[in-house]
Amino acid sequence: EDWRSRRTVQIFQYILLKWAFALIIGLSTGLVGIFNNIAVENIAGFKLLLTTELMLKHKYYKAFAAYAGCNLGLATSAAALCAFIAPAAAGSGIPEVKAYLNGVDAYSILAPSTLFVKVNVIGIVSQYLRRFLSPVIYYLFVLLIYWFTLYAYLITYKTILGQQGNLRCSCIASLIGQGGSRKYHLTWRWLRYFKNDRDRRDLITCGAAAGVAAAFRAPVGGVLFALEEAASWWRSALLWRTFFTTAVVAIVLRGFIQLCSTGTCGLFGQGGLIMYDISAAKVVYSTPDILAVILLGVIGGILGSLYNYLVDKVLRTYSIINERGAAVKILLVIMISLLTSICSYGLPWLATCIPCPADASTSCPNTDVSGNYKSFQCPPGHYNDLASLFLNTNDDAIRNLLSTNTVKEFHISSLLIFFVAVYCLGIITYGIAIPSGLFIPVILAGSCYGRLVGRLFEPISKLDVGLFSLLGAASFLGGTMRMTVSLCVILLELTNDLLMLPLVMLVLLISKTMGDMFNKGVYDQIVKLKGLPYMEAHPDPYMKHLIARDVVTGPLITFSGVEKVGNILLALKNTGHNGFPVIDEPPFSDAPELCGLVLRSQLLVLLKGKAFSKDRVLAGNKVLRKISELDFAKAGSGKGLKLEDLDIQEEEWDMYVDLHPIANTSPYTVVETMSLAKAAVLFRELGLRHMCVVPKSQGRPPIVGILTRHDFQPEHILGLYPHVRFQQ
Amino acid sequence: EDWRSRRTVQIFQYILLKWAFALIIGLSTGLVGIFNNIAVENIAGFKLLLTTELMLKHKYYKAFAAYAGCNLGLATSAAALCAFIAPAAAGSGIPEVKAYLNGVDAYSILAPSTLFVKVNVIGIVSQYLRRFLSPVIYYLFVLLIYWFTLYAYLITYKTILGQQGNLRCSCIASLIGQGGSRKYHLTWRWLRYFKNDRDRRDLITCGAAAGVAAAFRAPVGGVLFALEEAASWWRSALLWRTFFTTAVVAIVLRGFIQLCSTGTCGLFGQGGLIMYDISAAKVVYSTPDILAVILLGVIGGILGSLYNYLVDKVLRTYSIINERGAAVKILLVIMISLLTSICSYGLPWLATCIPCPADASTSCPNTDVSGNYKSFQCPPGHYNDLASLFLNTNDDAIRNLLSTNTVKEFHISSLLIFFVAVYCLGIITYGIAIPSGLFIPVILAGSCYGRLVGRLFEPISKLDVGLFSLLGAASFLGGTMRMTVSLCVILLELTNDLLMLPLVMLVLLISKTMGDMFNKGVYDQIVKLKGLPYMEAHPDPYMKHLIARDVVTGPLITFSGVEKVGNILLALKNTGHNGFPVIDEPPFSDAPELCGLVLRSQLLVLLKGKAFSKDRVLAGNKVLRKISELDFAKAGSGKGLKLEDLDIQEEEWDMYVDLHPIANTSPYTVVETMSLAKAAVLFRELGLRHMCVVPKSQGRPPIVGILTRHDFQPEHILGLYPHVRFQQ
Repeated sequence: EDWRSRRTVQIFQYILLKWAFALIIGLSTGLVGIFNNIAVENIAGFKLLLTTELMLKHKYYKAFAAYAGCNLGLATSAAALCAFIAPAAAGSGIPEVKAYLNGVDAYSILAPSTLFVKVNVIGIVSQYLRRFLSPVIYYLFVLLIYWFTLYAYLITYKTILGQQGNLRCSCIASLIGQGGSRKYHLTWRWLRYFKNDRDRRDLITCGAAAGVAAAFRAPVGGVLFALEEAASWWRSALLWRTFFTTAVVAIVLRGFIQLCSTGTCGLFGQGGLIMYDISAAKVVYSTPDILAVILLGVIGGILGSLYNYLVDKVLRTYSIINERGAAVKILLVIMISLLTSICSYGLPWLATCIPCPADASTSCPNTDVSGNYKSFQCPPGHYNDLASLFLNTNDDAIRNLLSTNTVKEFHISSLLIFFVAVYCLGIITYGIAIPSGLFIPVILAGSCYGRLVGRLFEPISKLDVGLFSLLGAASFLGGTMRMTVSLCVILLELTNDLLMLPLVMLVLLISKTMGDMFNKGVYDQIVKLKGLPYMEAHPDPYMKHLIARDVVTGPLITFSGVEKVGNILLALKNTGHNGFPVIDEPPFSDAPELCGLVLRSQLLVLLKGKAFSKDRVLAGNKVLRKISELDFAKAGSGKGLKLEDLDIQEEEWDMYVDLHPIANTSPYTVVETMSLAKAAVLFRELGLRHMCVVPKSQGRPPIVGILTRHDFQPEHILGLYPHVRFQQ
Repeated sequence: EDWRSRRTVQIFQYILLKWAFALIIGLSTGLVGIFNNIAVENIAGFKLLLTTELMLKHKYYKAFAAYAGCNLGLATSAAALCAFIAPAAAGSGIPEVKAYLNGVDAYSILAPSTLFVKVNVIGIVSQYLRRFLSPVIYYLFVLLIYWFTLYAYLITYKTILGQQGNLRCSCIASLIGQGGSRKYHLTWRWLRYFKNDRDRRDLITCGAAAGVAAAFRAPVGGVLFALEEAASWWRSALLWRTFFTTAVVAIVLRGFIQLCSTGTCGLFGQGGLIMYDISAAKVVYSTPDILAVILLGVIGGILGSLYNYLVDKVLRTYSIINERGAAVKILLVIMISLLTSICSYGLPWLATCIPCPADASTSCPNTDVSGNYKSFQCPPGHYNDLASLFLNTNDDAIRNLLSTNTVKEFHISSLLIFFVAVYCLGIITYGIAIPSGLFIPVILAGSCYGRLVGRLFEPISKLDVGLFSLLGAASFLGGTMRMTVSLCVILLELTNDLLMLPLVMLVLLISKTMGDMFNKGVYDQIVKLKGLPYMEAHPDPYMKHLIARDVVTGPLITFSGVEKVGNILLALKNTGHNGFPVIDEPPFSDAPELCGLVLRSQLLVLLKGKAFSKDRVLAGNKVLRKISELDFAKAGSGKGLKLEDLDIQEEEWDMYVDLHPIANTSPYTVVETMSLAKAAVLFRELGLRHMCVVPKSQGRPPIVGILTRHDFQPEHILGLYPHVRFQQ
């Protein structure tokens, strides 16, 4: 926040940089998105072509072997990358982004207290490499590793894994965030402006929005997703920057799609800027349709919350399995991959061959890579409806389910089989050591469910089954993710059918309400499961019965305004505290009074600067002349300086150091008798890390304690006061 | 915030009520919106039919008289309603809503310090009526007055006044808010839950969203508008409730439009749920188009900020004129109305008659109410392009400008004339004593400007002029309103063309950036002009150089924990303060310490309850047994109890009253040396009304002063420290 006191040139640099970073995030996310898309379509297309050709030659076992082999190879390589190079890449990444944007520091995410102990291998690798390579090559290398991991995850096997953009983009954003901080020892002075939490959070928010925008080609939906689900604090300026980022993504995507429409991108073809265009359908509905839609919403909400419940259970199981090491992780992936292959290839045999409709606009049966009416094992003139869903890319399967004016294309039994398979596979796949998402599996299951309901209500309903399918997807998304506006806009941008808006809104409201009756949204659940100290927007009711002093724990360590070096070193060594109050004592003030708060990282920099004096005197501003102000800014991806990096001589232990120049003299304070609920609101709304609790009555030490994020967690409070939960 | 400590039944009632109110707001806004729409189209249609018929008979002067007469009659009646019944209804209402949602209390909006001294006539009238009528009839009457005012404003004369929903809906919302508070003396206990600022702000936010949703048939855009422009604080729960409200609006609108499509609504016809559907246009663009679009955005942003500048100047002039009384106000309206009529009727004579195109899909020339190709004075087979724009409803004019595949329909000169006329009329019309908006005039001018640019770039551009027109509207909106996401979604929902999204985003970004270089958004300007103490999201830079103590002014009046009734009465009488610190002194505590904060309104209730005692003793909880907790809740549209309502006897002046039961014992406090900028952040983020400043050193009185919203205003700070602005 101190940039306002800088010179005009610096402010200009800072603003320019912010926008430049937003531009870079937008550009790179757009590029990664489109290249991933092309790669997925090409690799999946190759796999499907191979399978189909073998099928046409009636080599059914070979076809299965090819299909399962491809899946297995892709999944295993992705799992290996995940297990050995970037474990943090597993999962959808949205819960982590959400926690980070809530103020959970990247390091506490990886703290031992969390459920999943992950090692940030990429950090270690890159630390090691930095000693050998020049910065530029080093960056390229890191980028390459990230890229490759992400690439692998997106081209993994098809049926269940969704194309989920958030991890990818938050990686890009954090990469840039690191760029602004690793330079610590380097010469790029202007990148130092970004060494604070807020700017980094802003970048991550932009990244999250850009990721969704690229994944669904939904720029406005991306902004809203970042707003509704990811961000905990929101400013109008941030809205604008996020919007800019996603606009860049949209323009990049638009350009490449136009380029690819000339056929230069291999098997990449359908879709355009609207992924599942259903605007051709005529939207007509009346009272019975609305009743059907309400029923669809209610059941969809229940199924969605059941999905959350099961995902939670499965994740807990997997977390135990995954702790046993990389080999077990990969084995799990292989098993799931094989299961998926068996389902995808085996279940279509259950379907009977259906004669092609006479008025089909597309070719039928279809032996092409994508499209409806797959031939599979059927004789000419017939198609296998289950194969059209199973043996396709996710995008094509969803497109088939959403296709309008094809009422009878899928048998009710086929839809039921596909729905059950996708629902179950989706649940067991999330959480294995592969970077998989939740969005696409949920949309897939939901749209199948919707089409099923549409078929059942066909006798009394005028609404097209394709539109029912869209509403089904909406109900599932609402039931699992519990978002409203952002899902609505994402679905709108996916399908380009504004006339469905009232119905989509209705379904989302109903399914979210139903879901909220049973459990929390899936991302909130995962955040909780991972043990991240997330601050809820509302304090829990029992906090009203406590005051701030009640939850202050542990020995409070304070420093004098001018403190002995030895005392500081001991305090840093013996505690893990990150913030220490500084207290002015006589002769520097009449009575002990709170001077401010110093952070561990600032102390380390100060000690490294060795601005010591033999006597207990004020140093004034000459410390800051010795150490640049920017050195005190927050370090980047590393913890910055460590205690071991210091080289303090024995004789310096008895010298004094003046903490006034570095102390934050305006820490936010609360009186000890402040209601804990109100203190929590203050802490959360202002995004604090430390809050000083000061005494109410006079004549006592000027500080009672320090509250941190962990002190507001239910586990901590209810551990201290187990009965407060049941208090009136 | 204290509802969490209530019983389960009460919490359930409270939640149910919140949703019921959201439903009611949605329903009523939808109904008002659709009825207004029908009325506008019918009345304007009648006017235009009359004029056209007279024109066809070559009775040109009579036609003008009929046209101008209709306009004048409508405008004068609206102005009279505005001037005599509801002066607050003038203007678009968005700035007031914005200020209210920032925490500016409804009463400070009407304080003498504000620039426009308005008398809330409707309040007086209704106060008067309440004595004579039963509550139900009284409410119906208030509703009727509001309704009629709003009705009148929407059916006023056509060219310039936009259909602006915000006032309408915030009225509805505040009406409901009042409903929850006027009941004070009545028996509806359950409505009392809404007597706090937050719930009322939530209702107003829902209302603002519903208004935009109804005005533009853009439910998602409405939510985003409320989020981006109106609300100062935002919670996820509020997002959901707003979404629910606009969904209800959308469903109501959808139902009525379907009903009206059978022809039962008179002249109401075109539009449907998408007001200006341009999805038929083929979106193709390449590099030269993008360059043209960038240029369009730059110039549009400049013109938009010029619009803001001129509106500001005109409003300042009008505010002087309007202060001279109702008659002058109405005279101004009459003059503007005449000027508009003359422009609308006179300027089309400048246009030459154009032969009808051979391939026109609609009839040409057109003597119908709406549509393109107006005949005006032209011979058969010809049409007057300026008349197609001027002599139409706003909606139809915009629809004509956005019409695609009609490149040559409008002459460049005609577009230029219309643009200049609309731009100037828009500026001089806003601010007269008529409830007029900004949205529609800006869209009209912008789309004309865009079509003009499209015509100029026609030789090198492949983009349809109708799409250029849309981009022009976007650039103007971006240049004046300075919103991004919400405008983007509103335009999307207005035109149903998702493929234009990347270009619309680009234009909005450019025009907003250009506009921000010159001045603030138009609503921010108006808030400032009206002198409302709006708290910006960011503190001004000079605040970093001051500390909280610096801006504390005025004599601080404190009460003891058990205070003499007479002292309280004197303090209430002699000061206008709304919050008083309560200080515990011996014998109730060892040393003077801050016990809490009491509000004026709570003191008044307490004094009215007469829980006095002869001696200086603690009263305990028996006070609350005497006075219901809910009586202390914030009063509704009135100031609640007034000092004059109290009936304190002489002998009671020397008695004591215990303030402990009503004091807020956890007021937010800052230390006096806290940076003013940080204090401002705290104040703004938590939405406080009073902030206690406590001393840093011990042995001094336990409170230094109280900061309120006004203490953070630049006028106040720079009045105290004129030089701080120029400090480094």
